[in-house]
Amino acid sequence: MAEEPTGLKAKSGIELLTMGTPNGFKVSVLLEELKDAYGQEYTWQSININKNTQKQPWYTALNPNGRIPTIVDHNRDGFPVMEGLAILSYLTRHYDPEHRFSFPLDSDDYSVAEQWMAWQHGGLGPMQGQANHFLRFAKEKIPYPTQRYVGESERLYGILDARLQDRDFVAGPGRGKYSIADMSLIGWVNIANFSGIDLKQFPNVQAWLERIWSRPATPRAFSIPTQSALSNSARAKKFAEGDQEAIKKEEEAATFLKESKEKYGYKYSSP
Amino acid sequence: MAEEPTGLKAKSGIELLTMGTPNGFKVSVLLEELKDAYGQEYTWQSININKNTQKQPWYTALNPNGRIPTIVDHNRDGFPVMEGLAILSYLTRHYDPEHRFSFPLDSDDYSVAEQWMAWQHGGLGPMQGQANHFLRFAKEKIPYPTQRYVGESERLYGILDARLQDRDFVAGPGRGKYSIADMSLIGWVNIANFSGIDLKQFPNVQAWLERIWSRPATPRAFSIPTQSALSNSARAKKFAEGDQEAIKKEEEAATFLKESKEKYGYKYSSP
Repeated sequence: MAEEPTGLKAKSGIELLTMGTPNGFKVSVLLEELKDAYGQEYTWQSININKNTQKQPWYTALNPNGRIPTIVDHNRDGFPVMEGLAILSYLTRHYDPEHRFSFPLDSDDYSVAEQWMAWQHGGLGPMQGQANHFLRFAKEKIPYPTQRYVGESERLYGILDARLQDRDFVAGPGRGKYSIADMSLIGWVNIANFSGIDLKQFPNVQAWLERIWSRPATPRAFSIPTQSALSNSARAKKFAEGDQEAIKKEEEAATFLKESKEKYGYKYSSP
Repeated sequence: MAEEPTGLKAKSGIELLTMGTPNGFKVSVLLEELKDAYGQEYTWQSININKNTQKQPWYTALNPNGRIPTIVDHNRDGFPVMEGLAILSYLTRHYDPEHRFSFPLDSDDYSVAEQWMAWQHGGLGPMQGQANHFLRFAKEKIPYPTQRYVGESERLYGILDARLQDRDFVAGPGRGKYSIADMSLIGWVNIANFSGIDLKQFPNVQAWLERIWSRPATPRAFSIPTQSALSNSARAKKFAEGDQEAIKKEEEAATFLKESKEKYGYKYSSP
C-alpha cells in the first residue's frame, strides 16, 4: 500500500497531483498528448481524496480549495494552478506553441473552445457529479434530487449530441480539431453509464468518445494514477462476465431511477 | 408589460441578452465598468426565463445551451458568446486593451484570475444555485440536499474569506486589483443571505462586497435589466420595514435549514 504524498517530489517540469476521476483525467489526457506531440515529460503523484490528503496544508498552499487536480510548474518557479479549466488553459498557453490541441488567442476558435470548456466546467461536470451522488453514493435514496440531476445531465448530453451532429470534435473550423474543449469533457462521458445516462440515446457523443479512445495517448492517460472502476467499459465488462452482485445492484439502481423519474413526471427535453 | 424579444435589435457594438440574476449581473457589471473606463457603449435586452425565451430557436442559435447571459458582438460579424466565464474573458480580450479589469495574457496574474473564475464558475455558482433551489424554490422541502448545498456553499465562502484575508480583491499583485475574477463572484455574494449564508461569518467577504458596491458602476449594473428582489439589501430592507409575511417566511426557512443541518450532523469546515 503506497503511502500518501507529503509534499512535491519533482525539481523541474510539470508535476500533476491527481486521482482517477473525471476531473483528474482531463489533465493526464492533455499531458499524455503533449508528450506524444512535443516529447514533453511530466511527473505525477496520486492523491487519495478519501484520506483527505488534499486538505493537508502543503496541498492547500498550492490549491486553496482543497480539491484535485492541481499542477505545479517547476520550470516557472513552482507556479501552482488549480481548477481543470484553468489548468488546461495554462498548459496549452505555455506548452502547446504549435496549437495542436488549442487555438491562437486572437482567433474566434479560442473563444468557442473556451465557451464549451466553461459549459462543461459549470454545467456537465457539476451536474453529473450530483447525479452520481444521489444515484450511487448517498446513503439515503431520495427520488427528487436523483431525477433532477440525472435529468439535467441528460439535457446537457443532448446539447453535446447536437453540437457533434456534423462535427468530429467540439471546437475548431470545419469538422473540428481535437482540443482541450474535448479533453475537458471526455472523463465525464467515459462514466456516463454510472451516472444513469444511456449513451445509445446520444449516438454522436458515443461516436466521439470512441474517436478519442482510438488515440494512443487516451488509454495511457486513463490509467494515471489508476484506472477507474466506474468507466463505461469497466462496468460493461463486469456485466458481460456475469458478476451477479454487480448486475443485481445495477438493476436496483435502474429501477430506483425509473421510479424517481416517473414520480415527478420527468420528460427528456433539450435544450 | 413588455413583450419578450424575438431577435437581436442592435446593428453595432455589444448586445447583451440577460436577466437580473447572479450570472446575468456578471456581464452588466463588466460592461458598465468598460463604459466608465473607455466610453464603450452597449445595448441590452431583457430575457424572461420564466417565459422560455431562452429556448426559442433565434436564441439557441446564439447560445445552444439555452441559458442566460449571452452576448453578441456586432463589431465582429455578430460573433456570439455564451457562459459567464467565457463572456468576461472575451470582453476583456477585445475591449480592455489597458488591462484595467484584466491581466496581460503572458502574466501569471492572468492564470490566477482564470483559476478563481473557474472556481466560481464550477463551484460557488452551481452549488449556491442548488442551495437556492432546495432552500427556497423546490415545492418539496427535503433536508438532505438542503444542508448539502448550503453547507458546500459555506465551505466555498470560507475559501473566499481566507483568500481576502490580506487582499482587497481576488486577483492581482499586492492587495489585488478589481478584475473579472471579482466580477464573476459579486452577483452570487450579493444574494448570499437568500441562499442561507450569513455574511457575518465571513467578514472579509462582507468588506469586499461593500468595497465593490462603492464603485459608481456597480449599482447601475445591478439594475440591468431589473434589480433583484433577492439581494441582501432588498431583503434586509423588507425585514427592517416589518413586512410580516416576509419575516414569517424567513423564520420558517431558517428553522428548516437549522433542522436540516442538525439532522445530518452538519459541521462547518473549510477547505
